[in-house]
Amino acid sequence: MVIALIGVGLIGGSMAIDLIESGFATRVIGVDAVDEHLDKALRRKIIHEASDLETAVSQSDIVIVSTPVDVLSRLLPEILNMVDHQIVTDVGSSKEAIQRVVSGHPNRANFVSAHPMAGTEHAGPEHAIPELFNGSCYVVCDKELSSTKALEAVQAMYEALNMCPLYMTSANHDVHAAYVSHISHISSFALALTVLEKEKDESRIFEMASGGFSSTVRLAKSNPKMWVPIFEQNRDNVLDVLDEHINTLSRFRSYLIKKDFESFDADIHRANDIKRILAQKK
Amino acid sequence: MVIALIGVGLIGGSMAIDLIESGFATRVIGVDAVDEHLDKALRRKIIHEASDLETAVSQSDIVIVSTPVDVLSRLLPEILNMVDHQIVTDVGSSKEAIQRVVSGHPNRANFVSAHPMAGTEHAGPEHAIPELFNGSCYVVCDKELSSTKALEAVQAMYEALNMCPLYMTSANHDVHAAYVSHISHISSFALALTVLEKEKDESRIFEMASGGFSSTVRLAKSNPKMWVPIFEQNRDNVLDVLDEHINTLSRFRSYLIKKDFESFDADIHRANDIKRILAQKK
Repeated sequence: MVIALIGVGLIGGSMAIDLIESGFATRVIGVDAVDEHLDKALRRKIIHEASDLETAVSQSDIVIVSTPVDVLSRLLPEILNMVDHQIVTDVGSSKEAIQRVVSGHPNRANFVSAHPMAGTEHAGPEHAIPELFNGSCYVVCDKELSSTKALEAVQAMYEALNMCPLYMTSANHDVHAAYVSHISHISSFALALTVLEKEKDESRIFEMASGGFSSTVRLAKSNPKMWVPIFEQNRDNVLDVLDEHINTLSRFRSYLIKKDFESFDADIHRANDIKRILAQKK
Repeated sequence: MVIALIGVGLIGGSMAIDLIESGFATRVIGVDAVDEHLDKALRRKIIHEASDLETAVSQSDIVIVSTPVDVLSRLLPEILNMVDHQIVTDVGSSKEAIQRVVSGHPNRANFVSAHPMAGTEHAGPEHAIPELFNGSCYVVCDKELSSTKALEAVQAMYEALNMCPLYMTSANHDVHAAYVSHISHISSFALALTVLEKEKDESRIFEMASGGFSSTVRLAKSNPKMWVPIFEQNRDNVLDVLDEHINTLSRFRSYLIKKDFESFDADIHRANDIKRILAQKK
């Protein structure tokens, strides 16, 4: 298969590495607004060649659009205008807004709305790594709007990455993604800012910060160019979960104020249940 | 040196492993309220023998008290009553409350108030691991209240663990610990509860949760028996940082409501600064 990779960053780059390695991709043509990304990707052999959007799409079997979601929303209709036999798929983290921009497009059936559930806090092709997706799930949204041929091609691609499919509507995806991904990022950004604002003595942070702190603020290193558009596109769901999160923290605050450490203990016991649920993953 | 290890859990156990390995500890006598902990620690050769508190203290050179901080506050005056030449140190994560209970004790100079800045989300001797502390810092509080002999012995012990010292008052320690450790735990507990409460469809959590989510809620697996007493003893500082954290999240909420994504972007850029600060650690 010839892959057109639109957006040569951490996600697209990591996919390309394993698609080439597995033999699924015989050729990867990279397209990126930033020339430096293309240079890096060529040097790392993540892509075989760099090209412009139109040439890349016309020469490909599958077009993977792996840009921030605001760029995705702009590019997808444009790309669907270019295709005849090509299959187009995206990796965006917010799905309803994307469904809206492709809805009713004459080539909508060529498009598969997908979201591989993996990533790191880094960005750019220099951070692309092998096996980033190995063993994780990917979500396919509104599959009834894609042709069987398109679905099968995208499924085969994710099989080559050793990922398992989940099917849901865009609307459901966005609710679940707000819970298990978007709120983690919000929480981590907020925690980093809280500590940076309160802890004026920077050296104390890195001297005293243990692995627990680093783990909790890891996502705060994530790129705003990627995340702000996600928060924008999934605003209502993110707001809903954020309200619940602020409520939980406010309840903790009230336990501290009332010195109600028994209720605090009971809540933490319930929070510990996340251990059982995450243990099912492995 | 003969070590009396009071509280044979993750922290005490991990210290014992490396103190034995480095040759600093020639004999470790374990004391624990839970017989099963002592059995496990004996089986894993984390301690050489199990004993009662009085015998262990009387036969030791250094007494390490590594229990939850509420037990620490109760035990420390009792242990200081028993000592003559022995040096006593603790590993508690809240220091002012501990200083209050030992303040004015005739043997106060035998005691070194210390806090090794490392840990994991697990608990119990079965999770004790080698090199948990290697390369991290430990805090010594109110060092002018300890004898030179006691300070030197505790410093030598932490040198054997390859840790670097930081000196501050109990009051300062508690402020910093609230920033870089206690609030991370509060945030993680709250995030786990938020997701558990909102995401009724449990299977979606583990299917969709990626490494980012797991990293952010890792600390939510931590033991309430250890953490609730810390929140209780360091209540005022934790409340202060928690208020700031809720303010930050409320500011994010207001950006979403007002669709002010430019300010959101600017805040996330500032949060990214945590990358630079944490990079200094390695």
